[in-house]
Amino acid sequence: MIKLINGVGRDIPEGLKPFVSSSNFMNEKRKLMPKKNKVDKPVFLPDFASAFEILAVKSGMTLSFHHHLRNGDKVIQLICDEIKAKNLQDIHLAPSSIFPSYTSLADLVKEGNVTNIHTNYINGPVAEMVSKGFLKGKLIMNTHGGRARAIESGDLKIDIAFLACPVVDKNGNGYGAIGKSACGTLGYALSDLHYAKKVVLITDTIVDSLEDFQLSGEYVDYVIKVDSIGDNSGIVSGTTEVTKDPIGLKMAKDCANMLDYLGIIKDGFSMQTGAGKTSLAVVKFVEQIMKHKGIKGSFASGGITKAYVEMLEQELFDELYDVQCFDLEAVKSFSQNKNHKAMSASEYGNPFEKDPVCNKLDFVILGATEIDLDFNVNVTTDSLGNLIGGSGGHADIAYGSKLTIIISPLIKSRIPIIKDKVMTVTTPGSDVDILVTERGIAINPKRIDLRQKLKDSGLPVFEISELLELSHKITGVPRKIETEENIVGFVEYRDGSYIDCIRQVKNGY
Amino acid sequence: MIKLINGVGRDIPEGLKPFVSSSNFMNEKRKLMPKKNKVDKPVFLPDFASAFEILAVKSGMTLSFHHHLRNGDKVIQLICDEIKAKNLQDIHLAPSSIFPSYTSLADLVKEGNVTNIHTNYINGPVAEMVSKGFLKGKLIMNTHGGRARAIESGDLKIDIAFLACPVVDKNGNGYGAIGKSACGTLGYALSDLHYAKKVVLITDTIVDSLEDFQLSGEYVDYVIKVDSIGDNSGIVSGTTEVTKDPIGLKMAKDCANMLDYLGIIKDGFSMQTGAGKTSLAVVKFVEQIMKHKGIKGSFASGGITKAYVEMLEQELFDELYDVQCFDLEAVKSFSQNKNHKAMSASEYGNPFEKDPVCNKLDFVILGATEIDLDFNVNVTTDSLGNLIGGSGGHADIAYGSKLTIIISPLIKSRIPIIKDKVMTVTTPGSDVDILVTERGIAINPKRIDLRQKLKDSGLPVFEISELLELSHKITGVPRKIETEENIVGFVEYRDGSYIDCIRQVKNGY
Repeated sequence: MIKLINGVGRDIPEGLKPFVSSSNFMNEKRKLMPKKNKVDKPVFLPDFASAFEILAVKSGMTLSFHHHLRNGDKVIQLICDEIKAKNLQDIHLAPSSIFPSYTSLADLVKEGNVTNIHTNYINGPVAEMVSKGFLKGKLIMNTHGGRARAIESGDLKIDIAFLACPVVDKNGNGYGAIGKSACGTLGYALSDLHYAKKVVLITDTIVDSLEDFQLSGEYVDYVIKVDSIGDNSGIVSGTTEVTKDPIGLKMAKDCANMLDYLGIIKDGFSMQTGAGKTSLAVVKFVEQIMKHKGIKGSFASGGITKAYVEMLEQELFDELYDVQCFDLEAVKSFSQNKNHKAMSASEYGNPFEKDPVCNKLDFVILGATEIDLDFNVNVTTDSLGNLIGGSGGHADIAYGSKLTIIISPLIKSRIPIIKDKVMTVTTPGSDVDILVTERGIAINPKRIDLRQKLKDSGLPVFEISELLELSHKITGVPRKIETEENIVGFVEYRDGSYIDCIRQVKNGY
Repeated sequence: MIKLINGVGRDIPEGLKPFVSSSNFMNEKRKLMPKKNKVDKPVFLPDFASAFEILAVKSGMTLSFHHHLRNGDKVIQLICDEIKAKNLQDIHLAPSSIFPSYTSLADLVKEGNVTNIHTNYINGPVAEMVSKGFLKGKLIMNTHGGRARAIESGDLKIDIAFLACPVVDKNGNGYGAIGKSACGTLGYALSDLHYAKKVVLITDTIVDSLEDFQLSGEYVDYVIKVDSIGDNSGIVSGTTEVTKDPIGLKMAKDCANMLDYLGIIKDGFSMQTGAGKTSLAVVKFVEQIMKHKGIKGSFASGGITKAYVEMLEQELFDELYDVQCFDLEAVKSFSQNKNHKAMSASEYGNPFEKDPVCNKLDFVILGATEIDLDFNVNVTTDSLGNLIGGSGGHADIAYGSKLTIIISPLIKSRIPIIKDKVMTVTTPGSDVDILVTERGIAINPKRIDLRQKLKDSGLPVFEISELLELSHKITGVPRKIETEENIVGFVEYRDGSYIDCIRQVKNGY
């Protein structure tokens, strides 16, 4: 009898909305809630412990956070410690990302206080707890644009948003560009600010009045002053540096040459790259081409790094659109350069926005943990099924950009990255155009135009199945990985449909 | 190395525009030529033989025709006889369809006078000559909407259009509704009328003045009076009658019940069916449902038959949109009923029209010679590769309609209609939603919504691969059919791209 599978061939449990296609949202009407009630003046709470009482945080609530301080964030730890102290039950947490330093949250998952999680990226001990089946409810993995959509549509209802904010003024206006814990743009906090039932800014720096701010005080119910909201040196992760590996440099060079051959690097072009080391190497090669040919781009977007800051300063781009600063150079640039502009997660990648930045991109360079013969990409789990990341903006910009390139070595830690089928689908293959590896380039059969343009380019173009065979010759055919049947979470596509299930890993992995 | 294949997996020779997807035209700008110069008054030529001299028909020209008299047409025969008499060479013919009675044309192909053909449907001896490799140039198979696009864009340039017209007035205005050879609407003649370099109406009835007309005399250069333009009883082909076969009736009943279960037959709905016997049986069952439930539809379109005329007369539909009358009852209705409206091929199915009728359809029921595991449909060749038809409006309405249903017995003349891959792709599987056979119904995996809705319907729903296996159990696995390498023609998709090649059949078939 017929199989009920979704648009990328995955089984989705009954009653959940299956993913159909990346453009299916165009058949739907936008759901949009009214924004929260405005506030005359925020209440400044004297200290953190009393705040939790006044806010009446209780069991069953949904609490949200942004992740702009990334691995240096302390706010989520403070809240988790209070949940633990009060032994609240059935808490639903919705941080925009979860990093390895969030150890208190891992304890709450293990102890059963936190039962449901919505997030866009998850790594470290919390991920491990969820993969092992400790979360009593479910993990929902969103995209950056999809999280904004979920909040603004009312699909994800937030009781209290706890928003770390480097500086807050007496009217509750908040800004991330300055202060001792400055982290730059606060793009992921905007949906929470506008749609949570209650909004609390947590800061370590209060000033009389801010001229520039990103979070408008009219939506802020409470401000809490703490000693430190975090350590902004934790913003930089290992992944925001340019590669020195010769294989990575070769791939990056091939990729830049391909872009050049395709004629995409031309006056007025726009681009985004992930923050992986190889992607950043591509940026450097693109910069060389631009200088050599005297080309000026219109904008770069994303998580912004030093590489793009330098290009803006050399006027190689007119503007940067920044949803989160990936290093302290970007934080500094954001505070000083008027052409380094903030955008919200919704303006960046919400499918239902009229003209999101992701849809204006000429090309994007992204990474992959796995990619399969249908070009579906997994950046959510490893090949064993362990949670090690998530879409972030991956699926948003893969959809929006005119050209989506995945760059990755053919083999990582002796495991081929090309699979017959990926363990978990994060981004549908329909939105992935080209795979660049050190051994060759594969083009999605749907991109007939690119196949024609590149066939006489002299670049090493193969079918993706040929690259799979090549990698199997090197590593042997990997054994098939089994997971438990138990579903621990779901990958929610940016339109709110379910693109894949995440299952508990087998004991022993 | 990489294969250069088009969007349905077919090899297309270098330099030809490959089919990408059925919606790819949306990425393109419409090409539209200026219409031909207007004429003060047409010249009435005294007889046919002198006309050919005055028109200066010569070798290398492109001549076009419509097919509204179908198998009863005499005009194309007359022209072919003149080409033969003058032994013109390298003639390019562009009739909207070619029927078995066009024997003089078959001779011209065999003798090499006609070297290239553009048409939307081909059957009989001309088809046989082309399949056997006698055409020196190439056959291009268009869709009805695609032919209009080709002419209006200048891709298909016509030197002289010879348009059979049942009645013409002194100003050159032409109409098909009346006259001894009345054939109803002249929808396929409009592009030729507006864009050919010279337009000739050929008629057997001249009147002083027409109040209603479809062909405006201001575009008509010449009028030729002949004894007879054809026999309008030849309009009706065997395929325009309702089936009496019990298997056909069962499929039709299942199909109508499915439409009812899906809730598509509701006030204001619209539909189109092919003129196959089983499709027409579906119309009868739909009519019963409408009467039983008191439902009134908005419109039916197509080639209109008696079945729809009766429904219009019973006010079951508000309007009929008719591009060609399929029987004499439709001709009569068109001449008498103001709600039986004409449409041009462009208004019907040109992808670049703003709001073509095909895009407003709720469902269509179509036939298939073959259908494959990707739901690609062949109505162009048989399973051996012999030309036996063509798209007509098949690909146009399959694209435009919200729901596209193929109805066919599982096995025809001991040959399974489901194949791993069809011999020739006429309509891409992306636009085909459901296959109804007497042994079960298959739903395209892309239509996740339909799979969910129908899974508890009690209807016999299977995977298409299961139906293929079932038919192989009955007939055995058919042997693989080889063709010659020589390409005799191409299936041009409605947007002007090449969706498949047609190859010479092997000797002995």
